[in-house]
This record gives sequence, C-alpha cells and structure tokens, in this order.
Amino acid sequence: MAVRKRSSRDIRSESRLDVLHALLSAGESNRNELARTTGLSLATVATVVSELLAEGLVEEAGLSVSGVGRPTTTLRIHGARGLIAGIDVAETYVSAHVFDAALAEVGTADLALDEHETSAEYVVDAIVRALDAAVASTGLDRSRLLGVGVALPGLVQRSTGAISVVVPKWSWRAEDLIDLLRERVGLPLVVENPLKAIATAELWLGTGRGAASMVTINLGTGVGAGIVLEGQILRGATNSAGEWGHSLLVHEGRGCRCGRRGCVEAYVGAPGIQQTLREIAPDHPLADPDLPQRDVIGALATALRSPTPDPAVVETIARTSRYLGAAVADVVAIINPELVMLTGWTAWALGDDLLPGTEAEIRAQSPNGAATDLTVGISTVRGNSAAIGMATLAFERFLGDVGLVTTRATLAL
Amino acid sequence: MAVRKRSSRDIRSESRLDVLHALLSAGESNRNELARTTGLSLATVATVVSELLAEGLVEEAGLSVSGVGRPTTTLRIHGARGLIAGIDVAETYVSAHVFDAALAEVGTADLALDEHETSAEYVVDAIVRALDAAVASTGLDRSRLLGVGVALPGLVQRSTGAISVVVPKWSWRAEDLIDLLRERVGLPLVVENPLKAIATAELWLGTGRGAASMVTINLGTGVGAGIVLEGQILRGATNSAGEWGHSLLVHEGRGCRCGRRGCVEAYVGAPGIQQTLREIAPDHPLADPDLPQRDVIGALATALRSPTPDPAVVETIARTSRYLGAAVADVVAIINPELVMLTGWTAWALGDDLLPGTEAEIRAQSPNGAATDLTVGISTVRGNSAAIGMATLAFERFLGDVGLVTTRATLAL
Ligand SMILES: [Zn+2]
Ligand SMILES: [Zn+2]
Repeated sequence: MAVRKRSSRDIRSESRLDVLHALLSAGESNRNELARTTGLSLATVATVVSELLAEGLVEEAGLSVSGVGRPTTTLRIHGARGLIAGIDVAETYVSAHVFDAALAEVGTADLALDEHETSAEYVVDAIVRALDAAVASTGLDRSRLLGVGVALPGLVQRSTGAISVVVPKWSWRAEDLIDLLRERVGLPLVVENPLKAIATAELWLGTGRGAASMVTINLGTGVGAGIVLEGQILRGATNSAGEWGHSLLVHEGRGCRCGRRGCVEAYVGAPGIQQTLREIAPDHPLADPDLPQRDVIGALATALRSPTPDPAVVETIARTSRYLGAAVADVVAIINPELVMLTGWTAWALGDDLLPGTEAEIRAQSPNGAATDLTVGISTVRGNSAAIGMATLAFERFLGDVGLVTTRATLAL
Repeated sequence: MAVRKRSSRDIRSESRLDVLHALLSAGESNRNELARTTGLSLATVATVVSELLAEGLVEEAGLSVSGVGRPTTTLRIHGARGLIAGIDVAETYVSAHVFDAALAEVGTADLALDEHETSAEYVVDAIVRALDAAVASTGLDRSRLLGVGVALPGLVQRSTGAISVVVPKWSWRAEDLIDLLRERVGLPLVVENPLKAIATAELWLGTGRGAASMVTINLGTGVGAGIVLEGQILRGATNSAGEWGHSLLVHEGRGCRCGRRGCVEAYVGAPGIQQTLREIAPDHPLADPDLPQRDVIGALATALRSPTPDPAVVETIARTSRYLGAAVADVVAIINPELVMLTGWTAWALGDDLLPGTEAEIRAQSPNGAATDLTVGISTVRGNSAAIGMATLAFERFLGDVGLVTTRATLAL
C-alpha cells in the first residue's frame, strides 16, 4: 500500500471523516470501538467525538454495559441534524433523493424530462420541482435542507476558473444553467459529473475508504471511471479525468455514440453488450435494439441462471468479460490502483457473471506487477449512486462550511 | 488549472523547491527576481534563501547594480556543495553520470553489460565500477558524493512494504540486488524505474514545474508514461503506475515483447515504428530488422528532411502519429492532464515530425473537453534523462535528509 502523505491540518480533517465514516458503517458505536475501527488513538477519537457532538452531527444513543467494565456511551450520527439532497439529472429524467444527516434515504421523487425541451429554464425548473417533491415526500420542512448536490450529465468542467457544463444534446450555454440553478435552489449547492459522484459514494458508503487508491468502473448505458487517489477524487486539469468510457479499446473498431470509433463504451455499455450478442446471434430475441436496455441486461442475467444456459448468452458474457478486462487493465496499467470496484446497474445485474472472466483478463492483460496487489470487486452500494454520491459531496461541503473538514476541491456554487 | 491543495508544512518545502528550481533555471538571480519568477513574497524568498545559504546550497555570486536602486546580491546554486550521481542501468549497459549540486554534469562513464551474465553480483559490480569511473572522470574525490540514484530496468515495486525489482530477463531474486547495492555503494541511495526518473527530470529541469498535472511520454525502444500530479510522481499501489506502454492500443493486434498483443509499445516503440514501415514497404532498406534502432529512427528523420521525402517514410510517420495520438488520448481521457511532454530519443529525433499529427489525433480522439486546456510539447531535457532524473531524485533525498523538504515517497534504501 502506498504511503499516504498528509499534513497535520489534513490529519485533523481526515480523523473527523474517519470517525464519521466509521459511525455511518456501524450505525451505532462507542469511543473505544471507534478507536479500534479507525486506528486512531482513543484521545483523538474523544476529541473528534466532542467536536461532532458540539456540531450536532453525532448524538449519544444511551449507555451500554459489556462484560465487567464501566458502561460506555453509545454514539450514532444524529440523522435529524438536517437533510441533504442528491439529484441525478440525465437527459431523460431527474431523480431527486433526500437523505438525513446519517445518509439514510428519507424521500425521493422522479420526473421525466422531455428530450426535445432543452432550454436551461426547463431543465432547472424540473430539478427544482423534483427537489421540492422529494422534500415534500419526507413530510419535513424544506428549511431543514443543509445542502443540495446535483449530478449533471456530460462533463462538468472547471476551465480557467469558471465552472461549465458540456452536455452534447443540450444546446444552451452552460453558464445559464449554473446561474439559474444557484438562483432557484437558494441553498449551498455542489454540481459534479455522475462518474465523480459515483466514486464519492463508493468512498463514503462502499469499500473505498480504506484504500490508498481506487478506480470505480460504472457500467450502465454509458460507462466511465472514477479515480480516487489517497481519498480524493482525481479531477484533472478541467475536471474531466475518468473518461475511460471513451478511451480506445479497439483501434478503428465499433462506432460509438460520442462520434469516435472503438471506445470502451461501444463494447461494455449496455447497448455494446447487446451488439456483441447480435454479432454472435443476429436473430436472437434479446438482440432487438428496440428492447429497453435494462430489460435486455436483466434477461441476460436470467438466461445465465437457467439449468441449460443459452450458449449465445454465455458467449456474450465471455466476450464482454474479455473486453471489460482488457479495458480495465489499461486503467490498471496507468493508475496501478489497489482496488477496482465495478458498479452501476449492469454490474449489479451481471457482475457475478462478469467478474471471474473480467478479473482473469485484467490479470492476464496487466503489465508485470501492475495487478499484483489489486483487488477487484462488485460495489455493495445500491440505489441511485450518482444521487447518493451527490448527497455525500453536499454533505462534505456542509462539513467544510461548518469548519469540520478542510475544503476539498468540490465544484461548489 | 486545478487548485493545488497544500498544507503549511508542504508550502515551506515547496517554497524551497520553487526557489531552487528558479535558481537552477536562471543560473544566477537575486531575491527580487526570485520573488517575481516564483510568485512568492519577497519575505518568503529572503527566508528560504537564508536557509539555503546556511545549508551551503546557495552562494552569493557578487553584487549587481541595476538602474538607480541599491546594489543587489546575486545568488546562484553552490555547485561545489557536493556531487550527485545518477545511474541508468539497462539490460545491455550501465551509464553513470555525475552532477554537481547545480545539476550540471561534471563526469560520466559508460560500461557494456553482457546480457548473458545476469547474476546480481555481476550487475551490482558493473554499477559500482561505472560509478567509480564517472567520479574519477571528474577529478574530484568520491567523498564529495551526497547521494546516488539508480534507475533499474523493469518494475521497481513497493509491495507490502518491501522494495523489489522485477526485470524479466534477470533471473536472480531482486532482494539480492537491493541488498548488494546498498552494501557496495555505501552512500544515501535511491532506486526507481526509469519512467519515473524521466518524469522527475522533466519536473526539475523541463517544463513540468508549473503544471498542476503532467504526463511524460517516453519514446525509445520501450515506451512508457510518467504521471505527475501536483508536483508529485504518481506511484500507484505497487509503484507500477505509468505502464502505458503495455496498455492496449489494438485489441488482438501486434505481438509485443511483453508477451501480450496490441500494446502501445508494439506500435510506437522504435521496433514498432520500423514494423509499420515494413507493413507499408516490406522491402524498404530501413525495414531491415537487423539495423540498429537508433540508426533507423535517425535515417527516417533524415529522409523526411529531403526535398523529395520518401513517401513510405512519410506514411510511416503519419500512421505512427495516429497510433501515438490515439494512445496518448487514452491517458488524457483517464488523467486529464494540463501538459503532455514527449521525450526519449525517438521524440528528440522525430518529435517535430510526429507532433502535429499526434496532437491533432489526441484532440480528435479525446472525449469532449478532456483536451480543452491541454498543451502538448517535446521535452527540452536532453541527455540521459533517466540518469538526470535519478540524480534529481537523489538530490531530493539529500534535501530531505538535511531537513529542507518534507520526505517525498522516494524509494530510498
Ligand atoms: Zn466514445
Ligand atoms: Zn506489451
């Protein structure tokens, strides 16, 4: 494991985050147990806990007596401290999720977007309506919101100081959206690309916290990577790092919806997997491009669980595993992470089927030693991980605003 | 440009490094000028300069009077403070270079290795003999050496705490080499992979210093990348980050000497470029695999400068530019750096010919926005950049040992 380089100032922030993470995972805990799970000294845990108690983020849940010792105070995240919203905006829908301060979902609302209505006003209005509906569904007051995180499709960039959003299908100037959002939401706000939000969800609620380096591989209609180095999302010069889905898998290969050829996404995105099936069995009922993608992926998973699995489906999974393994091996060669986590709805449906072949191919295709200490797994985070990740980013911003952690490079508005 | 996150402790180290870098670039300077070039306050520069003067790393070179002001003290790196050695070890040679503390080369010695003699004793003995010969060529005493950096071919890994070296053609256990080296050199020692050494050379002596993120692309017989994020080399979980040369360019493409197929190196390494020529013109005189690689690359460069350039060579360069651009675009998609610097002897010979096509292909193949703020250039660092980089790493270690910079994660023995 790489040595983490941290300053004393970072160390205080990280200790607070470590304790929060440990409490989030455990549900309830106490100072001794927190010291054991975080590896921090009992004195540090005690200091951090008093800071978190003072801020109302942690509460005492009672006393517990174990064995012959003195009773210990049970601690938990004070969920009622406030609400955090995470909103996943795609070209065809807005999905708003409201969480309590313990990151438990307490309300949600979905809303379809008309793909042909692409004005900034229309999109922002839909975001605000979804947010309000999600808050309303909790029965709690909107004033309890501590912050809002919005995942925007396409690239959320920071170039020469300004935040801009590039969504190929949306024609309006990105600045209009950002200004309108800021004005209409009227709350501490962060915006991010879904890939970075998903990686943050893995860092907060998945297995990423302990790793010095992690790559999340998101598999859905589109695919992409989130890169986490020493607990921080790699953003890159213009916040575009992780666009692995449009890196090259097959030189001059399949056409990709981005306009180029041979991209990873054209092979391991859901439509790419269906195209592989079509190449193997052109007349296969699941090869029909008009079928909804999630239905196709779900049906492939079902077919594999049959006592006599469809050989065309088996071969599709075998080829997809090889494509995916070769594509992930490229990230492994370049980044040399400790941990690769597959996530997204394709990974949740087909992950167990894809994992053995993918992992074997990663190891076969990685240069000497790059995969020596590598762990590959399927994320245990479920639900709308872009929305969950945005909520964690909004929560991080809140922690920064109240002075509990040093500012991370979130794209805060 | 991404915001650099730094602690106050880092800031002091970085200020010292900034002043040292500025003095190295300028040759001679003064406090006012150093404040301007580094962007540091005059007070900070004054503090740093007194620290460096106290350590004997900077010396006063005299007084200069400019305009009507008071005379200012001219400063320069105190080259005579000591010697630093950088040694490039390949499978067929050892090249030792000795630098003064201002990183000016003052002596060198090369030594051929018998590829069939692969015992650790043989290799270490050759390293020590080359070092001693290089020191002898300076006419200065070996006791003046402040440190030694050795670039070892293959992967220098840090896995579960221990440093190991994996060189496919060398059969001995890596630990033996490390132990022997430590014993025989008897001086502060760092070992690293050449790719990371080359990236460090670019950081110290090239254009990398000002960039928040940089990728060096080394083009020679082998190819590989060095990734620099916020002034630090990305090492990865087992110090294997940057093995881009063996990431995939063409799925199931050309065989690579690493045993896999379709690697970047098989297309843009010198033998790969020659193979492209062979595919275009099988009987071309430069397509003969028995020709020395550097001669082939040099002859291609000469042919391009003819009034009537050989069309097969022109086409070879065009294809190589597309291969290289597509391969670099993958790193750009994943890392989203500010700066890509091509380096290595192929880049020095053919860089100006490759650059336009490569840069166009990088931009064409990069996902939306990933190349927006990207600068692509040819390194101005010449000579044995692995040896130069190892000397800068040994110098960094020395700065750490005397307490001038916080320890960086160098692989120090
Ligand atoms: Zn694409
Ligand atoms: Zn290879």
